[in-house]
Amino acid sequence: MLRKTDVLVVGGGPAGSLAAVTGKSSFPEKKFVIVNDEDHSMVPCGIPYIFGTLNGVDKNLLPNERLTKAGIDLVNGELTAIDRKEKVCEFADGEKIAYDRLVLAVGSTPVVPKWLKGADLENVHVIKKEKEYLEDFFKSLADFKKIVVIGGGFIGVEISDELNKLGKDVTIVEILPHILGLAFDADLAGEIQKIVVQRGVKVRTGVGVKQILGSDKVEGILLQNSERIDADAVILSMGYRPNCGVAERSGLSTNELGFIRVDEYMRTEDPSIFAVGDCAEKRDFSTRKVSGVMLASTASTEARIAGMNLYGLSVVKTFRGTIAIFSTAIGDYGFGSAGLTETAARKEGFEIVTGMFDGVDKHPSTLPDVHRQLIKLIVARDSGAVLGGEVLSGPSAGELVNMIGLIIQNRMTIDMILSSQIGTHPLLTAPPTAYPLIKAAEDAAKKIRGV
Amino acid sequence: MLRKTDVLVVGGGPAGSLAAVTGKSSFPEKKFVIVNDEDHSMVPCGIPYIFGTLNGVDKNLLPNERLTKAGIDLVNGELTAIDRKEKVCEFADGEKIAYDRLVLAVGSTPVVPKWLKGADLENVHVIKKEKEYLEDFFKSLADFKKIVVIGGGFIGVEISDELNKLGKDVTIVEILPHILGLAFDADLAGEIQKIVVQRGVKVRTGVGVKQILGSDKVEGILLQNSERIDADAVILSMGYRPNCGVAERSGLSTNELGFIRVDEYMRTEDPSIFAVGDCAEKRDFSTRKVSGVMLASTASTEARIAGMNLYGLSVVKTFRGTIAIFSTAIGDYGFGSAGLTETAARKEGFEIVTGMFDGVDKHPSTLPDVHRQLIKLIVARDSGAVLGGEVLSGPSAGELVNMIGLIIQNRMTIDMILSSQIGTHPLLTAPPTAYPLIKAAEDAAKKIRGV
Repeated sequence: MLRKTDVLVVGGGPAGSLAAVTGKSSFPEKKFVIVNDEDHSMVPCGIPYIFGTLNGVDKNLLPNERLTKAGIDLVNGELTAIDRKEKVCEFADGEKIAYDRLVLAVGSTPVVPKWLKGADLENVHVIKKEKEYLEDFFKSLADFKKIVVIGGGFIGVEISDELNKLGKDVTIVEILPHILGLAFDADLAGEIQKIVVQRGVKVRTGVGVKQILGSDKVEGILLQNSERIDADAVILSMGYRPNCGVAERSGLSTNELGFIRVDEYMRTEDPSIFAVGDCAEKRDFSTRKVSGVMLASTASTEARIAGMNLYGLSVVKTFRGTIAIFSTAIGDYGFGSAGLTETAARKEGFEIVTGMFDGVDKHPSTLPDVHRQLIKLIVARDSGAVLGGEVLSGPSAGELVNMIGLIIQNRMTIDMILSSQIGTHPLLTAPPTAYPLIKAAEDAAKKIRGV
Repeated sequence: MLRKTDVLVVGGGPAGSLAAVTGKSSFPEKKFVIVNDEDHSMVPCGIPYIFGTLNGVDKNLLPNERLTKAGIDLVNGELTAIDRKEKVCEFADGEKIAYDRLVLAVGSTPVVPKWLKGADLENVHVIKKEKEYLEDFFKSLADFKKIVVIGGGFIGVEISDELNKLGKDVTIVEILPHILGLAFDADLAGEIQKIVVQRGVKVRTGVGVKQILGSDKVEGILLQNSERIDADAVILSMGYRPNCGVAERSGLSTNELGFIRVDEYMRTEDPSIFAVGDCAEKRDFSTRKVSGVMLASTASTEARIAGMNLYGLSVVKTFRGTIAIFSTAIGDYGFGSAGLTETAARKEGFEIVTGMFDGVDKHPSTLPDVHRQLIKLIVARDSGAVLGGEVLSGPSAGELVNMIGLIIQNRMTIDMILSSQIGTHPLLTAPPTAYPLIKAAEDAAKKIRGV
């Protein structure tokens, strides 16, 4: 049977569902169908928290009701082919759906490096986004005492902290000099690492993994320096690869990192097909180079852009390149990063200055539950435009880094920050006289003036 | 003896100290003197919290070390006259200081309405910013069981909640239909009021006070509707009046609300004299009308602007009108408001639409300590520019309303918000698929399109 729809969205994660919801809201007269290969998608950034906080996967599901309530049809199926000429998608169960517009939101798959010996042993896990896989992994945790996490990016660090909460003996192994080293410069990453270690997670940085040891089951890992760390289980958090097989087979181009090529409206080279989320090409907002950073928040913006441009393009609703706004929480600390780090900016050849301020997140600092609030800005010397920012604070770090995100996206200069009005409150923010974002801008301004 | 300085700052609150610190940082070769009429200034927005949180005034002092460390001289004195021709200030103890630039940061005084009978009774208090006055008031609290707070603005509400924490029987009397009615429209103010009432504070709105009752000491208050409320003490939080006597006597003009007139560089009509903070004229960012709103955060921005423009004006560092960014916390809820409310915008004749979204401040919503996150945007129908915003959330409300502040200051449109990248994290923010700020913009966009 050939089913027909106006807009067909493949993929039910945040990108797919948001493209459909935004599209339906923008073009309510059109018919929308989402095809998902699972009954329920997971909240992707919630996955680390199923271990020590949510205590299982059931509390971490994206509700399907939001879609059905919006008048979007939900279908279960696995995409196997796209017939671009006939504008028909084919699915594993034989179903075919004809579309007028197609949105590919087919996600990504955890990387398991081919060179890594022992990656196929029992109790070696990756962090997939599939409910059943995660359910089984969660259940198997009871048997493990010592766990090694390979890769100290956000997911590796978050999962390690959660497993540590469960009383596991957890070691993160990271080849870079610091954990979270792509999002934070050494100064902030070092401070964050101290907090993670104080909470009981072991951290080994600056050394790679040679192989995973064991005959059937994992017994440990061997580092490049021949040191051995015992382990009952190993978690690989070494990045994700875009799912682009079907798109490629249909003749859509992909870029050098394997992402489906898209323009600023999130259209592929086929004007009827859009791609959003982890599978879609991203360019860095400032360097304009192709970027491999995958974030649910970036995916959501791309999805909104695609949804609004499905029928008729809007030049004021475009995706202008990824700023990669990260945030995370460890204990009652929050950390965030947006745009370029100092290291990345210098490497790209930007002439920059940095501004930094070390303050507090409430005022006066004699109040209970006060956290340090450390903010670093990366600023272009010629224009004063902010290219990046990093935050270490309490829970307000999440929205603080979003402010920095807005500053970067609007190409705000430090003069504009210095003249900005900021609301402050003893229990909610830093003091008006020493608001770290403004003080960091002041520090950068001084360096530009050569004071 | 005639002392001499380059820059003389009168007033040691946030505005005065920040004007001096920013000025010294911008013009390090100049000599700066601050004259303060107290040994220590209070953190002004911290004052409500001395009652139920900081447990006294000593933990709520602005540190003088920040000034002395920056190379600024501190002098104790009370300004009595300005000789503008000779450029000399005179103080109550007879001291005179000659200046090249003068910054007036002389603050404000609580309003005690002349028509209010009984305002001179014992145990009628205002919230002054003076250490000794507050110390005495704090000590006297032990004797009071029933307290009436007249005026349900931010200070009245914050103090009421703090006194309630101490076990006092507190009633707020507010003549407007809701507490916080100038910062929030009825929809959000109503929700906030519910939270305040649930915590045990009694709230009487929509009725004015006729007189304070008692022979020597307070015994109660009489409302306009002849109802009586018993009280051992009454706190008047009915607003503040700028301290402009000395400035007026020196011939500087003040506006119809009694504030010292200033331009966008915070200069008075005398090019050597700047005014900042509660005593300085403010215009609303959008209506361009004179505004009476006093906030430490607005004062701080004005102070930075003045400090940077003391010697040589910078057209990119000006104060472009007050956005009045408020935030406060009650229990573990946070509330904030920036720019125009819907009511104010309609009254001024702006053709507007509003956008609203009711979400959560963490995701998934099954996480512990999740708060409702309700955001309302006030948007100009012609341009889509955001004129105002209101937030009810958890503790992230403080920085969320600062984001809205940046949006207003940068004249961002809802299309720009809809295309914005926002970082999200389960424990720190709303979900990327239902980030209330963006969903509220979407709601406003629909209304503009007439969907």
